[in-house]
Amino acid sequence: MKITVVGLGVIGGSFVKALKGKGYEVYGVDINQESLHDAKRDGCIIEGYTDPSEIIPQTDLTIIALYPSLVLDFLKNNTFKPGSIVSDAVGIKSYFLKQALELMPEDVEYISVHPMAGREKKGYEYASAEVFKDANFIVVQTSINKPQSIAFMEGFAHDLGFHSVKIMSPIDHDEIIAFTSQLPHTIAVALMNSDTQKYDTGKYIGDSFRDLTRIANINEDLWTELFLNNKEHLLEAMTHFETQFDILKKAIKNDDADTLKKKFRESSKRRENL
Amino acid sequence: MKITVVGLGVIGGSFVKALKGKGYEVYGVDINQESLHDAKRDGCIIEGYTDPSEIIPQTDLTIIALYPSLVLDFLKNNTFKPGSIVSDAVGIKSYFLKQALELMPEDVEYISVHPMAGREKKGYEYASAEVFKDANFIVVQTSINKPQSIAFMEGFAHDLGFHSVKIMSPIDHDEIIAFTSQLPHTIAVALMNSDTQKYDTGKYIGDSFRDLTRIANINEDLWTELFLNNKEHLLEAMTHFETQFDILKKAIKNDDADTLKKKFRESSKRRENL
Repeated sequence: MKITVVGLGVIGGSFVKALKGKGYEVYGVDINQESLHDAKRDGCIIEGYTDPSEIIPQTDLTIIALYPSLVLDFLKNNTFKPGSIVSDAVGIKSYFLKQALELMPEDVEYISVHPMAGREKKGYEYASAEVFKDANFIVVQTSINKPQSIAFMEGFAHDLGFHSVKIMSPIDHDEIIAFTSQLPHTIAVALMNSDTQKYDTGKYIGDSFRDLTRIANINEDLWTELFLNNKEHLLEAMTHFETQFDILKKAIKNDDADTLKKKFRESSKRRENL
Repeated sequence: MKITVVGLGVIGGSFVKALKGKGYEVYGVDINQESLHDAKRDGCIIEGYTDPSEIIPQTDLTIIALYPSLVLDFLKNNTFKPGSIVSDAVGIKSYFLKQALELMPEDVEYISVHPMAGREKKGYEYASAEVFKDANFIVVQTSINKPQSIAFMEGFAHDLGFHSVKIMSPIDHDEIIAFTSQLPHTIAVALMNSDTQKYDTGKYIGDSFRDLTRIANINEDLWTELFLNNKEHLLEAMTHFETQFDILKKAIKNDDADTLKKKFRESSKRRENL
Protein backbone atom coordinates (compact mmCIF):
# COMPACT_ATOMS: atom_id res chain seq x y z
CA MET A 1 0.00 0.00 0.00
CA LYS A 2 1.36 3.39 -1.10
CA ILE A 3 1.05 6.18 1.50
CA THR A 4 2.06 9.76 0.80
CA VAL A 5 2.41 12.27 3.61
CA VAL A 6 2.09 15.86 2.41
CA GLY A 7 3.96 18.33 4.60
CA LEU A 8 6.86 16.90 6.61
CA GLY A 9 6.59 19.37 9.49
CA VAL A 10 6.29 18.31 13.10
CA ILE A 11 3.02 16.39 12.52
CA GLY A 12 3.67 14.99 9.03
CA GLY A 13 7.24 14.20 10.04
CA SER A 14 5.99 12.27 13.07
CA PHE A 15 3.68 10.30 10.74
CA VAL A 16 6.53 9.16 8.47
CA LYS A 17 8.77 8.40 11.47
CA ALA A 18 6.01 6.34 13.13
CA LEU A 19 5.37 4.45 9.87
CA LYS A 20 9.00 3.34 9.52
CA GLY A 21 9.25 -0.44 9.48
CA LYS A 22 5.49 -0.95 9.62
CA GLY A 23 5.26 -2.50 6.13
CA TYR A 24 3.84 0.47 4.23
CA GLU A 25 5.38 2.05 1.12
CA VAL A 26 5.78 5.65 2.32
CA TYR A 27 6.50 8.78 0.22
CA GLY A 28 6.77 12.42 1.15
CA VAL A 29 5.75 15.73 -0.43
CA ASP A 30 7.06 19.07 0.79
CA ILE A 31 8.14 22.42 -0.64
CA ASN A 32 11.25 22.15 1.55
CA GLN A 33 13.94 20.01 -0.14
CA GLU A 34 15.84 19.68 3.14
CA SER A 35 12.92 18.03 5.00
CA LEU A 36 12.52 15.55 2.12
CA HIS A 37 16.26 14.86 2.14
CA ASP A 38 16.31 14.32 5.92
CA ALA A 39 13.27 12.00 5.87
CA LYS A 40 14.87 9.92 3.09
CA ARG A 41 18.20 9.85 4.95
CA ASP A 42 16.32 8.62 8.07
CA GLY A 43 14.79 5.79 6.03
CA CYS A 44 11.29 7.15 6.71
CA ILE A 45 10.32 7.75 3.07
CA ILE A 46 11.27 5.90 -0.13
CA GLU A 47 11.32 9.13 -2.14
CA GLY A 48 10.46 12.78 -1.66
CA TYR A 49 8.75 15.11 -4.15
CA THR A 50 8.32 18.84 -4.36
CA ASP A 51 5.83 18.30 -7.23
CA PRO A 52 2.86 16.32 -5.85
CA SER A 53 1.63 15.32 -9.34
CA GLU A 54 4.57 12.89 -9.55
CA ILE A 55 3.24 10.71 -6.72
CA ILE A 56 -0.33 11.61 -5.61
CA PRO A 57 -2.10 9.98 -8.63
CA GLN A 58 -0.49 6.63 -7.62
CA THR A 59 -1.15 6.98 -3.87
CA ASP A 60 -3.65 4.79 -1.95
CA LEU A 61 -3.67 6.93 1.21
CA THR A 62 -2.79 10.63 1.12
CA ILE A 63 -2.33 12.33 4.51
CA ILE A 64 -2.23 16.11 4.18
CA ALA A 65 -0.50 17.52 7.25
CA LEU A 66 -0.79 21.22 6.37
CA TYR A 67 -2.62 24.26 7.78
CA PRO A 68 -6.40 24.18 7.06
CA SER A 69 -6.38 26.67 4.15
CA LEU A 70 -3.41 24.90 2.55
CA VAL A 71 -5.18 21.52 2.80
CA LEU A 72 -8.09 23.02 0.84
CA ASP A 73 -5.68 24.43 -1.76
CA PHE A 74 -4.05 21.02 -2.06
CA LEU A 75 -7.42 19.32 -2.57
CA LYS A 76 -8.27 21.83 -5.32
CA ASN A 77 -4.98 21.55 -7.16
CA ASN A 78 -4.43 17.78 -7.19
CA THR A 79 -5.88 14.70 -8.83
CA PHE A 80 -6.20 11.71 -6.52
CA LYS A 81 -6.22 8.02 -7.43
CA PRO A 82 -9.77 6.64 -7.88
CA GLY A 83 -10.69 4.46 -4.89
CA SER A 84 -8.02 6.03 -2.69
CA ILE A 85 -8.43 7.62 0.74
CA VAL A 86 -7.47 11.22 1.51
CA SER A 87 -7.03 12.50 5.07
CA ASP A 88 -5.91 15.53 7.08
CA ALA A 89 -4.99 16.39 10.67
CA VAL A 90 -6.80 19.74 11.00
CA GLY A 91 -7.75 20.59 14.61
CA ILE A 92 -11.44 21.46 14.06
CA LYS A 93 -13.65 19.44 11.73
CA SER A 94 -17.22 20.74 11.06
CA TYR A 95 -16.46 23.98 9.22
CA PHE A 96 -13.45 22.42 7.55
CA LEU A 97 -15.17 19.27 6.26
CA LYS A 98 -18.02 21.33 4.78
CA GLN A 99 -15.46 22.85 2.44
CA ALA A 100 -13.20 19.81 1.99
CA LEU A 101 -15.95 17.34 1.07
CA GLU A 102 -17.27 19.65 -1.67
CA LEU A 103 -13.88 19.57 -3.35
CA MET A 104 -13.64 15.77 -3.54
CA PRO A 105 -14.65 13.69 -6.55
CA GLU A 106 -17.11 10.86 -5.82
CA ASP A 107 -14.55 8.10 -6.38
CA VAL A 108 -12.18 9.35 -3.66
CA GLU A 109 -13.05 8.83 0.02
CA TYR A 110 -12.24 11.61 2.46
CA ILE A 111 -11.66 10.61 6.12
CA SER A 112 -10.53 13.31 8.50
CA VAL A 113 -8.48 12.32 11.54
CA HIS A 114 -7.09 14.01 14.66
CA PRO A 115 -3.88 12.66 16.20
CA MET A 116 -3.94 14.23 19.68
CA ALA A 117 -0.21 14.63 19.97
CA GLY A 118 1.49 17.88 19.24
CA ARG A 119 4.58 19.82 19.99
CA GLU A 120 5.00 23.53 20.40
CA LYS A 121 8.03 23.41 18.07
CA LYS A 122 7.75 23.40 14.29
CA GLY A 123 9.57 21.43 11.62
CA TYR A 124 10.74 17.92 10.72
CA GLU A 125 13.65 18.04 13.18
CA TYR A 126 11.17 18.15 16.10
CA ALA A 127 9.01 15.35 14.66
CA SER A 128 9.08 12.10 16.62
CA ALA A 129 7.29 8.75 16.61
CA GLU A 130 7.47 8.89 20.41
CA VAL A 131 4.75 11.57 20.71
CA PHE A 132 2.19 9.12 19.24
CA LYS A 133 2.97 6.42 21.83
CA ASP A 134 0.10 6.02 24.29
CA ALA A 135 -1.63 9.06 22.77
CA ASN A 136 -5.25 9.48 21.66
CA PHE A 137 -6.46 9.38 18.04
CA ILE A 138 -9.86 10.39 16.67
CA VAL A 139 -11.32 9.19 13.35
CA VAL A 140 -14.02 11.59 12.16
CA GLN A 141 -16.81 9.73 10.42
CA THR A 142 -19.18 11.36 7.90
CA SER A 143 -22.12 9.99 5.91
CA ILE A 144 -19.92 9.31 2.87
CA ASN A 145 -17.57 6.91 4.71
CA LYS A 146 -17.63 3.13 4.17
CA PRO A 147 -17.43 0.99 7.35
CA GLN A 148 -14.39 -0.88 6.00
CA SER A 149 -12.55 2.43 5.40
CA ILE A 150 -13.24 3.55 8.96
CA ALA A 151 -12.03 0.16 10.22
CA PHE A 152 -8.87 0.56 8.13
CA MET A 153 -8.14 3.99 9.64
CA GLU A 154 -8.65 2.55 13.11
CA GLY A 155 -6.04 -0.14 12.49
CA PHE A 156 -3.75 2.39 10.84
CA ALA A 157 -3.85 4.58 14.00
CA HIS A 158 -2.83 1.58 16.12
CA ASP A 159 0.02 0.88 13.67
CA LEU A 160 1.19 4.47 14.24
CA GLY A 161 1.46 3.66 17.95
CA PHE A 162 -1.68 5.38 19.25
CA HIS A 163 -3.13 3.83 22.38
CA SER A 164 -6.78 4.83 21.99
CA VAL A 165 -8.80 5.31 18.80
CA LYS A 166 -12.27 6.85 18.94
CA ILE A 167 -14.72 7.25 16.04
CA MET A 168 -17.09 10.20 16.17
CA SER A 169 -19.03 12.79 14.13
CA PRO A 170 -17.49 16.16 13.17
CA ILE A 171 -19.81 18.02 15.56
CA ASP A 172 -19.06 15.75 18.55
CA HIS A 173 -15.36 16.06 17.76
CA ASP A 174 -15.59 19.84 17.82
CA GLU A 175 -17.55 19.88 21.08
CA ILE A 176 -15.09 17.78 23.06
CA ILE A 177 -12.04 19.40 21.45
CA ALA A 178 -13.35 22.85 22.46
CA PHE A 179 -12.99 21.65 26.04
CA THR A 180 -9.84 19.51 25.92
CA SER A 181 -7.74 21.58 23.48
CA GLN A 182 -9.16 25.03 22.68
CA LEU A 183 -10.15 26.04 26.23
CA PRO A 184 -6.65 25.18 27.61
CA HIS A 185 -5.15 27.41 24.90
CA THR A 186 -7.38 30.39 25.84
CA ILE A 187 -6.48 29.85 29.52
CA ALA A 188 -2.73 29.69 28.83
CA VAL A 189 -2.85 32.90 26.77
CA ALA A 190 -4.90 34.75 29.41
CA LEU A 191 -2.62 33.54 32.24
CA MET A 192 0.51 34.68 30.41
CA ASN A 193 -1.02 38.05 29.54
CA SER A 194 -2.30 38.66 33.10
CA ASP A 195 1.25 39.08 34.40
CA THR A 196 1.61 42.60 35.83
CA GLN A 197 5.36 42.27 35.14
CA LYS A 198 6.18 43.98 38.45
CA TYR A 199 8.79 41.25 39.13
CA ASP A 200 11.22 39.37 36.88
CA THR A 201 8.67 36.57 36.52
CA GLY A 202 11.02 33.94 35.10
CA LYS A 203 12.97 33.91 38.38
CA TYR A 204 9.89 33.03 40.45
CA ILE A 205 8.27 30.20 38.52
CA GLY A 206 8.19 26.47 39.03
CA ASP A 207 6.97 23.60 36.86
CA SER A 208 3.29 24.44 37.40
CA PHE A 209 3.58 27.87 35.78
CA ARG A 210 5.80 26.46 33.01
CA ASP A 211 3.29 23.68 32.29
CA LEU A 212 0.27 25.98 32.26
CA THR A 213 1.83 28.51 29.89
CA ARG A 214 3.74 26.25 27.48
CA ILE A 215 0.92 26.56 24.89
CA ALA A 216 0.70 30.35 25.38
CA ASN A 217 3.34 30.37 22.63
CA ILE A 218 0.71 30.01 19.94
CA ASN A 219 0.46 30.27 16.14
CA GLU A 220 -1.73 33.37 15.75
CA ASP A 221 -3.19 32.71 12.30
CA LEU A 222 -3.93 29.02 12.82
CA TRP A 223 -5.55 29.32 16.23
CA THR A 224 -7.57 32.41 15.34
CA GLU A 225 -9.04 30.41 12.43
CA LEU A 226 -9.71 27.37 14.66
CA PHE A 227 -11.27 29.43 17.49
CA LEU A 228 -13.57 31.53 15.30
CA ASN A 229 -14.79 28.50 13.35
CA ASN A 230 -15.80 26.65 16.52
CA LYS A 231 -17.00 29.63 18.52
CA GLU A 232 -20.29 28.22 19.86
CA HIS A 233 -18.61 25.19 21.43
CA LEU A 234 -15.63 27.19 22.63
CA LEU A 235 -17.72 29.96 24.22
CA GLU A 236 -19.77 27.31 26.02
CA ALA A 237 -16.61 25.65 27.39
CA MET A 238 -15.25 29.07 28.44
CA THR A 239 -18.48 29.83 30.31
CA HIS A 240 -18.37 26.50 32.16
CA PHE A 241 -14.79 27.25 33.18
CA GLU A 242 -15.69 30.76 34.39
CA THR A 243 -18.49 29.34 36.54
CA GLN A 244 -16.04 27.03 38.32
CA PHE A 245 -13.39 29.76 38.61
CA ASP A 246 -15.98 32.08 40.20
CA ILE A 247 -16.94 29.44 42.77
CA LEU A 248 -13.30 29.30 43.91
CA LYS A 249 -12.98 33.08 43.89
CA LYS A 250 -16.08 33.56 46.03
CA ALA A 251 -14.98 30.84 48.45
CA ILE A 252 -11.58 32.50 48.88
CA LYS A 253 -13.21 35.92 49.36
CA ASN A 254 -15.59 34.51 52.00
CA ASP A 255 -12.97 32.35 53.82
CA ASP A 256 -15.15 29.39 52.89
CA ALA A 257 -12.72 26.53 53.54
CA ASP A 258 -15.41 23.86 53.16
CA THR A 259 -16.24 24.81 49.57
CA LEU A 260 -12.55 25.01 48.65
CA LYS A 261 -11.84 21.56 50.09
CA LYS A 262 -14.91 20.11 48.35
CA LYS A 263 -13.77 21.54 45.01
CA PHE A 264 -10.18 20.30 45.57
CA ARG A 265 -11.44 16.80 46.33
CA GLU A 266 -13.56 16.91 43.16
CA SER A 267 -10.71 18.05 40.91
CA SER A 268 -8.25 15.59 42.48
CA LYS A 269 -10.61 12.65 41.95
CA ARG A 270 -11.36 13.68 38.35
CA ARG A 271 -7.66 14.12 37.58
CA GLU A 272 -6.78 10.73 39.05
CA ASN A 273 -9.50 9.11 36.93
CA LEU A 274 -8.10 10.54 33.69
CA MET B 1 28.75 21.86 59.34
CA LYS B 2 25.90 19.71 60.68
CA ILE B 3 22.64 19.94 58.72
CA THR B 4 19.45 18.17 59.79
CA VAL B 5 16.51 17.85 57.43
CA VAL B 6 13.23 17.27 59.26
CA GLY B 7 10.68 15.37 57.17
CA LEU B 8 12.12 13.17 54.41
CA GLY B 9 9.12 13.46 52.11
CA VAL B 10 9.35 14.58 48.50
CA ILE B 11 10.84 18.00 49.40
CA GLY B 12 13.00 17.03 52.40
CA GLY B 13 14.10 13.88 50.55
CA SER B 14 15.16 16.00 47.57
CA PHE B 15 17.19 18.20 49.96
CA VAL B 16 19.19 15.27 51.38
CA LYS B 17 19.66 13.75 47.91
CA ALA B 18 20.88 17.09 46.52
CA LEU B 19 23.27 17.51 49.48
CA LYS B 20 24.97 14.15 48.91
CA GLY B 21 28.67 14.58 48.25
CA LYS B 22 28.56 18.37 48.79
CA GLY B 23 30.73 18.28 51.94
CA TYR B 24 28.03 18.78 54.56
CA GLU B 25 27.37 16.49 57.51
CA VAL B 26 23.71 15.61 56.89
CA TYR B 27 21.23 13.96 59.29
CA GLY B 28 17.53 13.17 58.96
CA VAL B 29 14.50 13.28 61.23
CA ASP B 30 11.22 11.57 60.37
CA ILE B 31 8.42 9.68 62.10
CA ASN B 32 8.72 7.08 59.33
CA GLN B 33 11.54 4.59 60.03
CA GLU B 34 11.50 3.38 56.42
CA SER B 35 12.28 6.82 54.94
CA LEU B 36 15.18 7.19 57.39
CA HIS B 37 16.43 3.71 56.48
CA ASP B 38 16.19 4.39 52.74
CA ALA B 39 17.98 7.76 53.02
CA LYS B 40 20.81 6.15 55.03
CA ARG B 41 21.02 3.24 52.55
CA ASP B 42 21.28 5.83 49.70
CA GLY B 43 24.19 7.50 51.51
CA CYS B 44 22.19 10.75 51.79
CA ILE B 45 22.23 10.95 55.60
CA ILE B 46 24.80 9.84 58.16
CA GLU B 47 22.08 8.84 60.63
CA GLY B 48 18.31 9.06 60.97
CA TYR B 49 16.32 9.86 64.11
CA THR B 50 12.67 9.54 65.06
CA ASP B 51 13.38 11.56 68.21
CA PRO B 52 14.58 15.03 67.15
CA SER B 53 16.05 15.80 70.60
CA GLU B 54 18.88 13.38 69.79
CA ILE B 55 20.24 15.58 66.95
CA ILE B 56 18.59 19.03 66.78
CA PRO B 57 20.52 20.52 69.77
CA GLN B 58 23.80 19.78 67.90
CA THR B 59 22.60 21.00 64.47
CA ASP B 60 23.95 24.14 62.75
CA LEU B 61 21.25 24.30 60.07
CA THR B 62 17.82 22.75 60.61
CA ILE B 63 15.56 22.57 57.54
CA ILE B 64 11.98 21.72 58.47
CA ALA B 65 10.26 20.29 55.39
CA LEU B 66 6.81 19.75 56.91
CA TYR B 67 3.31 21.20 56.44
CA PRO B 68 2.94 24.73 57.90
CA SER B 69 1.13 23.75 61.11
CA LEU B 70 3.62 20.93 61.75
CA VAL B 71 6.56 23.32 61.30
CA LEU B 72 5.07 25.53 64.03
CA ASP B 73 4.61 22.48 66.29
CA PHE B 74 8.23 21.49 65.68
CA LEU B 75 9.45 24.99 66.57
CA LYS B 76 7.44 24.88 69.81
CA ASN B 77 8.60 21.43 70.88
CA ASN B 78 12.33 21.58 70.16
CA THR B 79 15.42 23.30 71.51
CA PHE B 80 17.79 24.54 68.84
CA LYS B 81 21.55 25.09 69.10
CA PRO B 82 22.43 28.70 70.03
CA GLY B 83 23.79 30.51 66.96
CA SER B 84 22.23 28.01 64.55
CA ILE B 85 19.94 28.71 61.58
CA VAL B 86 16.45 27.23 61.26
CA SER B 87 14.57 27.17 57.96
CA ASP B 88 11.39 25.86 56.29
CA ALA B 89 9.97 25.44 52.80
CA VAL B 90 6.40 26.62 53.39
CA GLY B 91 4.71 28.00 50.23
CA ILE B 92 3.41 31.31 51.66
CA LYS B 93 5.48 33.42 54.03
CA SER B 94 3.84 36.51 55.61
CA TYR B 95 1.18 34.86 57.79
CA PHE B 96 3.49 31.95 58.53
CA LEU B 97 6.53 33.99 59.59
CA LYS B 98 4.41 36.12 61.95
CA GLN B 99 3.80 32.94 63.95
CA ALA B 100 7.18 31.25 63.40
CA LEU B 101 9.34 34.23 64.44
CA GLU B 102 7.46 34.60 67.74
CA LEU B 103 8.39 31.03 68.66
CA MET B 104 12.14 31.48 68.14
CA PRO B 105 14.60 32.33 70.92
CA GLU B 106 16.83 35.37 70.24
CA ASP B 107 19.99 33.31 69.80
CA VAL B 108 18.60 31.24 66.88
CA GLU B 109 18.21 32.82 63.42
CA TYR B 110 15.16 31.92 61.38
CA ILE B 111 15.48 32.20 57.56
CA SER B 112 12.55 30.99 55.49
CA VAL B 113 13.22 29.72 51.97
CA HIS B 114 11.16 28.60 48.98
CA PRO B 115 12.64 26.00 46.61
CA MET B 116 10.43 26.37 43.51
CA ALA B 117 10.55 22.74 42.56
CA GLY B 118 7.81 20.35 43.48
CA ARG B 119 6.25 17.10 42.46
CA GLU B 120 2.63 16.09 42.60
CA LYS B 121 3.69 12.79 44.22
CA LYS B 122 4.42 12.43 47.92
CA GLY B 123 7.15 10.56 49.79
CA TYR B 124 10.89 9.92 49.82
CA GLU B 125 10.73 7.51 46.89
CA TYR B 126 9.66 10.40 44.59
CA ALA B 127 12.33 12.75 45.94
CA SER B 128 15.09 13.62 43.50
CA ALA B 129 18.04 15.99 43.31
CA GLU B 130 17.16 16.43 39.63
CA VAL B 131 14.10 18.62 40.33
CA PHE B 132 16.38 21.29 41.84
CA LYS B 133 18.59 21.49 38.75
CA ASP B 134 18.05 24.75 36.88
CA ALA B 135 15.14 25.61 39.22
CA ASN B 136 14.42 28.85 41.09
CA PHE B 137 15.06 29.42 44.80
CA ILE B 138 13.84 32.27 46.98
CA VAL B 139 15.44 33.35 50.27
CA VAL B 140 12.95 35.32 52.36
CA GLN B 141 14.67 38.07 54.28
CA THR B 142 13.27 39.63 57.48
CA SER B 143 14.53 42.39 59.77
CA ILE B 144 16.13 39.86 62.15
CA ASN B 145 18.45 38.35 59.50
CA LYS B 146 22.21 39.02 59.40
CA PRO B 147 23.66 39.80 55.94
CA GLN B 148 26.20 36.96 56.29
CA SER B 149 23.40 34.45 57.06
CA ILE B 150 21.48 35.52 53.95
CA ALA B 151 24.70 35.20 51.93
CA PHE B 152 25.21 31.71 53.37
CA MET B 153 21.68 30.62 52.33
CA GLU B 154 22.31 31.98 48.84
CA GLY B 155 25.44 29.85 48.47
CA PHE B 156 23.68 26.88 50.03
CA ALA B 157 20.91 27.09 47.37
CA HIS B 158 23.54 27.04 44.62
CA ASP B 159 25.14 23.99 46.28
CA LEU B 160 21.73 22.29 46.10
CA GLY B 161 21.78 22.80 42.32
CA PHE B 162 19.40 25.75 42.00
CA HIS B 163 20.05 27.98 39.02
CA SER B 164 18.61 31.25 40.30
CA VAL B 165 18.49 32.56 43.86
CA LYS B 166 16.44 35.67 44.70
CA ILE B 167 16.27 37.47 48.05
CA MET B 168 13.03 39.23 48.91
CA SER B 169 10.66 40.27 51.70
CA PRO B 170 7.80 37.99 52.85
CA ILE B 171 5.18 40.32 51.32
CA ASP B 172 6.88 40.51 47.94
CA HIS B 173 7.30 36.72 47.97
CA ASP B 174 3.60 36.26 48.61
CA GLU B 175 2.59 38.70 45.88
CA ILE B 176 4.61 37.06 43.11
CA ILE B 177 3.81 33.52 44.32
CA ALA B 178 0.08 34.33 44.19
CA PHE B 179 0.57 34.81 40.45
CA THR B 180 3.15 32.14 39.57
CA SER B 181 1.95 29.32 41.84
CA GLN B 182 -1.43 29.90 43.49
CA LEU B 183 -3.28 31.28 40.44
CA PRO B 184 -2.18 28.29 38.27
CA HIS B 185 -3.57 25.94 40.93
CA THR B 186 -6.98 27.70 40.99
CA ILE B 187 -7.05 27.56 37.18
CA ALA B 188 -6.19 23.85 37.04
CA VAL B 189 -8.90 23.02 39.60
CA ALA B 190 -11.54 25.10 37.77
CA LEU B 191 -10.60 23.59 34.38
CA MET B 192 -10.85 20.04 35.70
CA ASN B 193 -14.17 20.74 37.42
CA SER B 194 -15.68 22.47 34.36
CA ASP B 195 -15.81 19.18 32.46
CA THR B 196 -19.45 18.42 31.60
CA GLN B 197 -18.42 14.73 31.47
CA LYS B 198 -20.61 14.16 28.39
CA TYR B 199 -17.71 12.26 26.78
CA ASP B 200 -15.06 9.88 28.13
CA THR B 201 -12.66 12.82 28.50
CA GLY B 202 -9.47 10.79 28.96
CA LYS B 203 -9.81 9.49 25.40
CA TYR B 204 -9.84 12.98 23.87
CA ILE B 205 -6.97 14.73 25.58
CA GLY B 206 -3.48 15.60 24.46
CA ASP B 207 -0.46 16.96 26.31
CA SER B 208 -1.92 20.45 26.68
CA PHE B 209 -4.88 19.25 28.78
CA ARG B 210 -2.63 16.90 30.75
CA ASP B 211 -0.16 19.73 31.47
CA LEU B 212 -2.84 22.22 32.49
CA THR B 213 -4.58 19.83 34.91
CA ARG B 214 -1.60 17.99 36.48
CA ILE B 215 -1.82 20.24 39.57
CA ALA B 216 -5.62 19.82 39.80
CA ASN B 217 -4.69 16.80 41.93
CA ILE B 218 -4.20 18.96 44.99
CA ASN B 219 -3.75 18.52 48.77
CA GLU B 220 -7.00 19.98 50.11
CA ASP B 221 -5.87 20.94 53.63
CA LEU B 222 -2.51 22.42 52.64
CA TRP B 223 -3.75 24.52 49.71
CA THR B 224 -6.86 25.75 51.51
CA GLU B 225 -4.57 27.06 54.27
CA LEU B 226 -2.17 28.63 51.74
CA PHE B 227 -4.96 30.26 49.67
CA LEU B 228 -6.91 31.71 52.61
CA ASN B 229 -3.77 33.13 54.23
CA ASN B 230 -2.78 35.00 51.06
CA LYS B 231 -6.24 35.94 49.86
CA GLU B 232 -5.64 39.62 48.99
CA HIS B 233 -2.77 38.81 46.64
CA LEU B 234 -4.49 35.75 45.19
CA LEU B 235 -7.81 37.54 44.55
CA GLU B 236 -5.92 40.32 42.79
CA ALA B 237 -4.11 37.80 40.55
CA MET B 238 -7.42 36.01 39.83
CA THR B 239 -9.02 39.32 38.81
CA HIS B 240 -6.16 40.15 36.44
CA PHE B 241 -6.54 36.72 34.87
CA GLU B 242 -10.31 37.13 34.47
CA THR B 243 -9.80 40.46 32.73
CA GLN B 244 -7.55 38.83 30.12
CA PHE B 245 -9.84 35.81 29.76
CA ASP B 246 -12.80 38.15 29.15
CA ILE B 247 -10.91 40.01 26.42
CA LEU B 248 -10.45 36.71 24.56
CA LYS B 249 -14.06 35.69 25.13
CA LYS B 250 -15.43 38.96 23.78
CA ALA B 251 -13.11 38.81 20.77
CA ILE B 252 -14.31 35.29 19.95
CA LYS B 253 -17.95 36.30 20.39
CA ASN B 254 -17.47 39.31 18.09
CA ASP B 255 -15.34 37.50 15.45
CA ASP B 256 -12.62 40.00 16.29
CA ALA B 257 -9.63 38.29 14.68
CA ASP B 258 -7.38 41.34 15.13
CA THR B 259 -7.70 41.35 18.92
CA LEU B 260 -7.14 37.58 19.11
CA LYS B 261 -3.99 37.80 17.00
CA LYS B 262 -2.70 40.73 19.04
CA LYS B 263 -3.25 38.80 22.29
CA PHE B 264 -1.61 35.65 20.82
CA ARG B 265 1.42 37.66 19.74
CA GLU B 266 1.64 39.16 23.24
CA SER B 267 1.42 35.79 25.03
CA SER B 268 3.87 34.14 22.61
CA LYS B 269 6.44 36.88 23.10
CA ARG B 270 6.06 36.83 26.89
CA ARG B 271 6.36 33.02 26.99
CA GLU B 272 9.48 33.05 24.82
CA ASN B 273 11.05 35.65 27.12
CA LEU B 274 10.54 33.48 30.22
